[in-house]
Amino acid sequence: MASRRPTLRLFAQCKTKPQFNYTWTPRRAASSFQSSGSARPAFSNSRNYLTLAAAGLAVATTLSYKMTVEDPIRCDTPTLAERDQQTKREKGVTDASPMRLRMEKFVKEQQKEIVRALEEADGTPFRVDEWQRKEGGGGITCVLQDGKVFEKAGVGVSVVYGTLPKPAIIKMRANHKNLAQDDNIPDSLEFFAAGLSLIVHPKNPMAPTVHLNYRYFETANPDGSSGAWWFGGGSDLTPSYLFDEDAIHFHKSLKEVCDAHDKEYYPRFKKWCDEYFYNKHRGESRGIGGIFFDDLDETVSDKENTFAFVQDALKSFAPNYISIINKRKDMPFTEKEKQWQQIRRGKYVEFNLVHDRGTAFGLNTPGARVESILMSLPLTARWEYMYEPEPKSREARLVEVLKNPKEWV
Amino acid sequence: MASRRPTLRLFAQCKTKPQFNYTWTPRRAASSFQSSGSARPAFSNSRNYLTLAAAGLAVATTLSYKMTVEDPIRCDTPTLAERDQQTKREKGVTDASPMRLRMEKFVKEQQKEIVRALEEADGTPFRVDEWQRKEGGGGITCVLQDGKVFEKAGVGVSVVYGTLPKPAIIKMRANHKNLAQDDNIPDSLEFFAAGLSLIVHPKNPMAPTVHLNYRYFETANPDGSSGAWWFGGGSDLTPSYLFDEDAIHFHKSLKEVCDAHDKEYYPRFKKWCDEYFYNKHRGESRGIGGIFFDDLDETVSDKENTFAFVQDALKSFAPNYISIINKRKDMPFTEKEKQWQQIRRGKYVEFNLVHDRGTAFGLNTPGARVESILMSLPLTARWEYMYEPEPKSREARLVEVLKNPKEWV
Repeated sequence: MASRRPTLRLFAQCKTKPQFNYTWTPRRAASSFQSSGSARPAFSNSRNYLTLAAAGLAVATTLSYKMTVEDPIRCDTPTLAERDQQTKREKGVTDASPMRLRMEKFVKEQQKEIVRALEEADGTPFRVDEWQRKEGGGGITCVLQDGKVFEKAGVGVSVVYGTLPKPAIIKMRANHKNLAQDDNIPDSLEFFAAGLSLIVHPKNPMAPTVHLNYRYFETANPDGSSGAWWFGGGSDLTPSYLFDEDAIHFHKSLKEVCDAHDKEYYPRFKKWCDEYFYNKHRGESRGIGGIFFDDLDETVSDKENTFAFVQDALKSFAPNYISIINKRKDMPFTEKEKQWQQIRRGKYVEFNLVHDRGTAFGLNTPGARVESILMSLPLTARWEYMYEPEPKSREARLVEVLKNPKEWV
Repeated sequence: MASRRPTLRLFAQCKTKPQFNYTWTPRRAASSFQSSGSARPAFSNSRNYLTLAAAGLAVATTLSYKMTVEDPIRCDTPTLAERDQQTKREKGVTDASPMRLRMEKFVKEQQKEIVRALEEADGTPFRVDEWQRKEGGGGITCVLQDGKVFEKAGVGVSVVYGTLPKPAIIKMRANHKNLAQDDNIPDSLEFFAAGLSLIVHPKNPMAPTVHLNYRYFETANPDGSSGAWWFGGGSDLTPSYLFDEDAIHFHKSLKEVCDAHDKEYYPRFKKWCDEYFYNKHRGESRGIGGIFFDDLDETVSDKENTFAFVQDALKSFAPNYISIINKRKDMPFTEKEKQWQQIRRGKYVEFNLVHDRGTAFGLNTPGARVESILMSLPLTARWEYMYEPEPKSREARLVEVLKNPKEWV
């Protein structure tokens, strides 16, 4: 958040409205102007949950201060980011803190936990990159590459503060009426988004790839209190060789977490996952699914209960997945089986680059940290023209299941 | 074109308007109904040149006969495809034939020529697949995979007959006013499109990947005569290791072809190529360019002269590229250099799946032959997180040139 510090100092020194010839740091001023124009059309074409799926991109980050005569600098109303910085500095984050601070703290803790668990499973340390985006926001990207067990594992956290322009507010109201009242849609709304994304591609073709993402979004009222909010997320498994017991174990673990909060969650989110992770041009699912949900707001459950659900779901990930990895990582495999894994990797790349709305949106966002978005791609992939598995082979059975998603529990 | 034959027979037997209970082959009837709905919105979002870039997809192929009472079968007005079938059968294709038949014949001949030349360079035969799309159209896809010289080479021809719905006509008029008069835009227009696409990925990292596409599009007037028309195409080179002499040779050959027809072509099409094959999210070009053009119609030159230019450009490809291949295919290389090639392949995949409008459009077209579209992908690719070539290395120099496209001739 270094890039925002000059503003914070500015706020602290300033008791009255400044003159219009006030001096800003050039970088801040430039990014403020650039982003306000370019972010608008991109955002208005996207769905809100993309904000975080795009691995912490500062989406639609029109900084709320603008250096124009019509919209003078108001030193007396700090941005949401500035308020949060101050709160964290002065009081720390407790259960009484705003949800955005608790979610940020939680995903950062979980990132450490998961990285530690994967490092232990592999015996190789992750590379850790902390980054900021000049248009606003930042994150921590942890990647382990060409390890002993994992071909590539990426665990990323991103935290974004920004401002939604009016067209985005209007668009998002389709799913979230309480973003603004019908007769009083503001010109802009400050928002916060934080999330954790991970993908693990193991080396052994018998061990499945996994993906997970949990995210929180909220807008701020003009007085700084929380406005609309929702959680999104899920986790799904992509094997090259299907072990029914792994699929059952993975889904069962997710179902248990879901059932503890709402018996309707698992069937609903399992279906949603099958629908979302569908490689349409191939006519098959990316993998054997899991759960996926979006827009989980007060129409479904209250904020505390939903956060509790997301916490349980995220915490259950490492033990669930690593128990599968431990069973598969040392299994023998042939060169042909490795090639089949590589062909499946190719399909994974296709889904992520062609259909995944978060990836596409992220890559088209100016100033995005591309390497954090594309950490999801495998180290290696393969495309063989017209490759068809032999009838009744294990490869053919996988494809059969991908074409006709199963109920695993 | 086997699937259209029943219709042709039907036409031949039929002298007056048939009864509404006329029997069609089930396949024809089904595809006619299905395509009329689904193709419309997809096409209205696309630019016209996509038709062929999508490797011969039958785009917006609303067959012009419809089995409804409102729109009875009119046996007295055959489709453009039916007329062309008849012409070819009765008269063959000569210099006096309509341009669509000459272009189809030409690209099919060139496909054979190029396949023969690549087979000779590699010593491995291509696999040849002739295919038809039930919604209309078809093609020939030739692929050589894991050869001695080439990792993957795909040479595809596609020929599409279809009907443009009104929204597509309105959209396309932005670039082609003569598609219809301002005050008389028809509800639909029959169109024809034919083209040749190829991509060659060599094994040796010192040998460059090449891409080429030439295509022709025209609409039919209600009396069957040619309406609006245009050519598009180009060719571009993507090295992993940059040999200036290859880049100069490649561009010089293209410039010579261009200059022989119009001195303005090369500078204009070279710039267009740099702009189109730009991997925006990476901030670099896909390769070192070549030429790219679209919408080459009567506002630029007449049909005969433009066809002559396209013929020369396409004919110049094989000798131009193969002379580069012969210089590079047996050069020694290290494992590290092979890995760099694989990383560059990854960027190629990114361009094709994220930014290439033709590929995206093709993959989102129902019933598309996905394997013909994705023959463009390399056999293998690699994504290393945060890979940066060493400063002042050959790899770094390539990236430098990709970030700042050069004038090669």
